[in-house]
Order: sequence, then structure tokens, then C-alpha cells
Amino acid sequence: MNAPGYFISFEGGEGVGKSTQSRLLGDWLAGLTGREVVLTREPGGTALGQELRAAVMHGQDMGPRAEALIYAADRAHHVDTVVRPALERGGVVITDRYIDSSVAYQSGGRDLPGHEVEHISLWATRGLRPDVTVLLDLEPGAAAERRAAAEGKGALDRLERAGLEFHTRVRDTFLQRAAADPDHWVVIDAAASIDDIQAQIRVDVAARLGLTPVVVEATGIHGLGSEDPSGDRDGEGAS
Amino acid sequence: MNAPGYFISFEGGEGVGKSTQSRLLGDWLAGLTGREVVLTREPGGTALGQELRAAVMHGQDMGPRAEALIYAADRAHHVDTVVRPALERGGVVITDRYIDSSVAYQSGGRDLPGHEVEHISLWATRGLRPDVTVLLDLEPGAAAERRAAAEGKGALDRLERAGLEFHTRVRDTFLQRAAADPDHWVVIDAAASIDDIQAQIRVDVAARLGLTPVVVEATGIHGLGSEDPSGDRDGEGAS
Repeated sequence: MNAPGYFISFEGGEGVGKSTQSRLLGDWLAGLTGREVVLTREPGGTALGQELRAAVMHGQDMGPRAEALIYAADRAHHVDTVVRPALERGGVVITDRYIDSSVAYQSGGRDLPGHEVEHISLWATRGLRPDVTVLLDLEPGAAAERRAAAEGKGALDRLERAGLEFHTRVRDTFLQRAAADPDHWVVIDAAASIDDIQAQIRVDVAARLGLTPVVVEATGIHGLGSEDPSGDRDGEGAS
Repeated sequence: MNAPGYFISFEGGEGVGKSTQSRLLGDWLAGLTGREVVLTREPGGTALGQELRAAVMHGQDMGPRAEALIYAADRAHHVDTVVRPALERGGVVITDRYIDSSVAYQSGGRDLPGHEVEHISLWATRGLRPDVTVLLDLEPGAAAERRAAAEGKGALDRLERAGLEFHTRVRDTFLQRAAADPDHWVVIDAAASIDDIQAQIRVDVAARLGLTPVVVEATGIHGLGSEDPSGDRDGEGAS
């Protein structure tokens, strides 16, 4: 459906390393496959998206449905003008957040039914789902402490602790979605080192996309081959 | 469902007199019922809506789904912050355009399925439908000639004739929706004079809302009574 390109999304909370890991994976896939690699993100991956994002930021008292619809509009435009054109050129598109973030943050975190949020996004994108979704999973308390340490702060304050409850619901939603669709999800422990995380992502993504063989060495990872000629990269069977 | 207020929408093409007729109807209903009357419009009836509208105007190459979602976001916010609060105060809300404009312009005029556009808007508004929708109906050729005459121009140019086809599809969609739900729609011939149009609107809207009795005299229209105490204004039966 997404052919001839590869569509990969990164999901997870704030500060778990999605953009760093996306970039490293993109560099590796460019070398391995020779394909064009497009790194992008939601929301705000287009000029219109930037305007919509600004509108969300200004709208202090916006309800959850208005917000969900603005994110869906951003996504529709992003898919129409960035993602699909690149996939149709045979490129690799790696997006920092996609539909699952909307479901996790707007239903897991708030009060909208998840299947309704997903339905709106699938309508927005004419059903475009990622070939692989990489979840960088981190326990929200650990993530908050990591950020506090990076900023030279001590214990979490009251607001930060209240936020933990929200982020725990978001995380649970991501994990439930991953568990329900293991053929398309890769769950990575984001508490590991950058190099270890990237190594695991490469192995798991390559397997999902049918990029073989990949040899993991003590000193790093090198893709030795090119793509699986069967093209059966997502378990849906070759035609 | 919308109680205790009255929710009225005006629909129709550009330049058929929706804002003039809305204002006249609002003045009359304020006097007749003693209720607060709120005149509003879509898109752009809120500050956020103005920002979203600007985003649509700037987005030259926006696809129909992104556009439909932005209008739905505008509508969600408008209903949340303007329409529902006024209805809950018992007010009369008269909006210049609502869901039917989205269906007519984005499915009748373009390439989206009408029931999908309607579904998104009903989700956006948590199912809020007008008690009465007034369609000011005008044959698009007559409307275009009326505008050309007002601007001192002669015959229609090529672009204007191409536009007629679009506006004919939009009009047909409005008429089909009115025919399918006569209990909630009032179709008015917008080729008549402002006074005659308003007279007909008052009679038909009062009947739909259960505001009785209304006496039509040769010199004008006067509402002589107040509201139907049964409250059964929309045919759904008193509780």
C-alpha cells in the first residue's frame, strides 16, 4: 500500500531521543539501501503545519476535539505534500511522531475515545500507516529525572509529579498499541545508551522491512546486503 | 438536545443575503421571545477561527481533507466557545453557515464523500445540529448576473462561467439535503425582495420552532404571542 518506499515512524515521550535515533537510522538506511531518506516530524512538518501549530499554542482554551482536528489537518497536509510524494519516489520516510502520538496523547492522556482519534487520522491520511513504528519506551519517572539531572535540578516539583500521571497513561497507550500489532511495532528500551539503542533499532527495523543480511559486530553494525528481493517486507505476503 | 436555546443556521451561496436576513430575523426573534440573540458565522466566528482561516488562505496547495479538517476544527471551537454556551443560557443562536456548507462545498463541489464530511463535523460538535436551517436558494447564473450588474459589468467571463458549474453542484447538494429533512429545513426563494424573503423566513422559522401565533398582515409581520408552552418545537415529542 505504501510501496515503493518505506515509511517508518518514531513514537515515545518527550526527550527519549527520537530525533537523534531517527537521524542515525536515516544515515544508515541511506547507505544500506541507496534510497533517498526524508526525515520529518509531526506536528509542524510543513509551513501550513507551523501555522496550525501556532494557532494551537495561542488557543488557550481550546477543547480536545478542536485540537485533535487541527493535528489531523496538519497530518493530512504533511502526508499529501511530504510523506506520500517521497514514498512514491521510492524513498525512506522517517517521521518523528505520527498517528499513534495523537491516539496516545489525546485519548490515553485525555478524554477522547482512541478509536475515534485514530479514525479521524486515518481519514486525514487516506489510510496511510507506517511499515514500522519504533517505540522508544521510557518509564516517565525515569525520563523526568533524566531531564531534571540534565538541567542541574534536584527532586521533581509538584507540577512535574502531576504530569507523571498523564505521561504514564500516554506510555501505557503506546505499549498497548505495540502489543496489539507486533508485526509493525518495535519496542526499544530507551534507558540504554545511544549506541545500544541504535544497534537494536537497526536490527529490528531491518527485519521488519526485509532488509537482509545484517551482521551485528562487536564494534558496531554494518548492513552487508541490500533488500530482500521478494519485497515481502511486512508479512502481508508477496503478490 | 440543543435545549434550552434555539439554534438556527443560514445556508446558501455567496451574495444571497444570508447576513442581512440573519440580522433581520435576529432582531425580530429578540423582540418576540425576549431571549438573548447571538449572530455568528463560520468559518472564522472566533479568534482561533480567524487564525485557521488565515492558514487556509495561505495554504495554496492544500488538499481537500486538510481543508475539511481545518473547517471542522474551527467549527468545534466555535460550538464549544460560542454556540453551546449561548444555547445553554437559553439564547437564540443564528449562524451564517454551519455543517451543511461543509458538505455542500467540500463534497458537492469537490471530491469528498458527503457522509464523511458530515461525520467529521458531527464529531467536532458532539452531534449539535440546528433546530432550523434556512436555505436562501438562488440559481447560480442569476446570482452571478446579479453580482455582475451590481459591479457595473456586462456578460460573465470564462472563469465565471466555469465557476457556475461548481456552484450548481453546491446548490444541488443544499437542495437535496433540504428535501431529505423537511422538518428542519426551510427553503426560501432568494430572488424575491429583502422584505418578502424576511416575511417568509419569519413564518417558516416560527412554525418550526413552535412560536405561535404569528399574524402576517399586508403591512408587515408581527409576532403577537410568545412561545408554544409545549416546547415541542422540533417534532421529537414533548417529554
